[in-house]
Amino acid sequence: MKTRAAVAFEAQKPLQIVELDLEGPREGEVLVEIKATGICHTDAYTLSGQDSEGIFPSVLGHEGAGIVVDTGAGVTSLKKGDHVIPLYTPECRECEYCLSRKTNLCQKIRATQGKGLMPNGTTRFTFEGKPIFHYMGTSTFSNYIVVPEIALAKIRQDAPFDKVCYIGCGVTTGVGAVIFTAKAEPGCRAVVFGLGGIGLNVIQALRIIGADQIVGVDINNSKKAIAEKFGMTDFVNPKEIGADLVPYLVDLTKGGADYTFECTGNVTLMRQALECCHKGWGESIVIGVAAAGAEISTRPFQLVTGRVWKGSAFGGARGRTDVPKIVDWYMDGKINIDDLITHKLPLDKINEGFDLMHEGKSIRAVVEF
Amino acid sequence: MKTRAAVAFEAQKPLQIVELDLEGPREGEVLVEIKATGICHTDAYTLSGQDSEGIFPSVLGHEGAGIVVDTGAGVTSLKKGDHVIPLYTPECRECEYCLSRKTNLCQKIRATQGKGLMPNGTTRFTFEGKPIFHYMGTSTFSNYIVVPEIALAKIRQDAPFDKVCYIGCGVTTGVGAVIFTAKAEPGCRAVVFGLGGIGLNVIQALRIIGADQIVGVDINNSKKAIAEKFGMTDFVNPKEIGADLVPYLVDLTKGGADYTFECTGNVTLMRQALECCHKGWGESIVIGVAAAGAEISTRPFQLVTGRVWKGSAFGGARGRTDVPKIVDWYMDGKINIDDLITHKLPLDKINEGFDLMHEGKSIRAVVEF
Repeated sequence: MKTRAAVAFEAQKPLQIVELDLEGPREGEVLVEIKATGICHTDAYTLSGQDSEGIFPSVLGHEGAGIVVDTGAGVTSLKKGDHVIPLYTPECRECEYCLSRKTNLCQKIRATQGKGLMPNGTTRFTFEGKPIFHYMGTSTFSNYIVVPEIALAKIRQDAPFDKVCYIGCGVTTGVGAVIFTAKAEPGCRAVVFGLGGIGLNVIQALRIIGADQIVGVDINNSKKAIAEKFGMTDFVNPKEIGADLVPYLVDLTKGGADYTFECTGNVTLMRQALECCHKGWGESIVIGVAAAGAEISTRPFQLVTGRVWKGSAFGGARGRTDVPKIVDWYMDGKINIDDLITHKLPLDKINEGFDLMHEGKSIRAVVEF
Repeated sequence: MKTRAAVAFEAQKPLQIVELDLEGPREGEVLVEIKATGICHTDAYTLSGQDSEGIFPSVLGHEGAGIVVDTGAGVTSLKKGDHVIPLYTPECRECEYCLSRKTNLCQKIRATQGKGLMPNGTTRFTFEGKPIFHYMGTSTFSNYIVVPEIALAKIRQDAPFDKVCYIGCGVTTGVGAVIFTAKAEPGCRAVVFGLGGIGLNVIQALRIIGADQIVGVDINNSKKAIAEKFGMTDFVNPKEIGADLVPYLVDLTKGGADYTFECTGNVTLMRQALECCHKGWGESIVIGVAAAGAEISTRPFQLVTGRVWKGSAFGGARGRTDVPKIVDWYMDGKINIDDLITHKLPLDKINEGFDLMHEGKSIRAVVEF
């Protein structure tokens, strides 16, 4: 069949809207009509050519929602008409990782996914007879995609695609970091570095779990209003405090934060996020993706005196198990997504969505097919 | 009263055995006759002058055991004749830290302890009328010491002082890192960096909790025999493997260790200890004390893909609550201390104990009064 898609033919070039050939689902695979997709910094990072795993030509996009159109042989958990969110972190429920109870990082199809291929080692997309690679196992910048059954979360039918597509990455990454990775508890004090699309979701999750203090750190004062709406109790602009950031934050949180979340990818902030944690028990969660080769550093004394340094990928959420719950939370009004979707665009204008993100004008731009 | 003590009059000089004046216990304080004390690398580190908290002249020593001789006003949990282990990490059971349930780092008397003083801000030791500072709140290189009630663990009367003194630091630090900090579970795979007095205790705790694989890493092949006796299943000498250490250890542990323990203080090893952890859930525990100013580094990707970096001080053990249990484990034959006490010396020969340690000839040298 044919599918319209925004294709990244090469790095650092705008995406091109073309019609691709799409092979149908093989055994254990599902054909999905993507109804909406968010544009995320990770797509831009790969398009920039800095991502060492980036492969071209490929169909980017990893934050989508849509409808099952067809299923391959052996697919049992999904049927035509089911509403789904594609998962760049699948959940096979049978690999060592899924069964460990300690991580969400299912490795069942990791090797082929990292190479832009389906589990059998080929692509389903072709353009003028040549293969076009998949991306993060999702490629939601295509109107139709084929993905493994284990990489689809089945969600309720009444959830609007143009909102819940964001649960495919940003919402789950931020909310999950609080709930699944940090397991933050009521009454805690937290600091969130970076008030973008991830940080705001961290903030609203901290509000949900009953944090006593939610400090937001950003060098852009324009983020303050929406962060407060999402639950931030204290705003800190490092450029305006006239003091070193770490002792300032330790003082503000009365001894250090119980949990800190680094949502920018800046390794200097990652260090500050660790060091403003409370002695004895403060935990710092790295969420942001650092530049290639960048390293984090600290004195080991920070750890020996009780601080913990950890990270979170896809919010520690298990895609098929937890993503449907987060959709429910949105539908029940527990979490706010509407205010984060600042722009909507047709596929033809997807490059404008990247521009809005680079210019800091959007929190999330969503493409509707 | 008078007490014989080995005094560090200045850095980088041998200790001098002299008779000090010791003031009796004030309110909340206890006079203890020290019967035996271990000599630990931390004492040597402070004596070297590199410890930024080091104060001279002082009475070093923090790994002792003894008998209560007298109690000050208000002391309720101890009486004359009780056997005790002094605690450089006290347990007041009423500060924010003790009540957090998340740390053992009681801060009740931290400020004065760090200055070599008793909680009221003065010393109990004097020499020729001039104050001699306390060290780590313990100063077990003195035959008699005065310490706060909250810095004494009451232990059973039948435990031999010349063995259980080691529980005052090394044993608890190693055993506790496994049990209280890592909370390692049966069936886990672990790597221990450094097979000295701490590492061997980490190994025996891993054996106790039922680890499936206990890899010991040391550049000294002479450590292999005793480490195997304590439970090590695999020995790795980084100088002899002819390969990079991290991938070698990942392969040896079939994908990475569930827990790693850094017991040397070398920041390069600390990084390797993190990076040989299993993707998704491996935790690395920093135990060793790094050189002043030394920093640890890694790519944040290591954390984002599920590895956790934490530290352990005094094994995460609460002194008054957990130390008596560890004494019981020794008396019950669950842990082996006897083989770790390689040398015993009278106080007059304490400097020889430091020499044995520096030359790598002793695991633990114990001074008996």
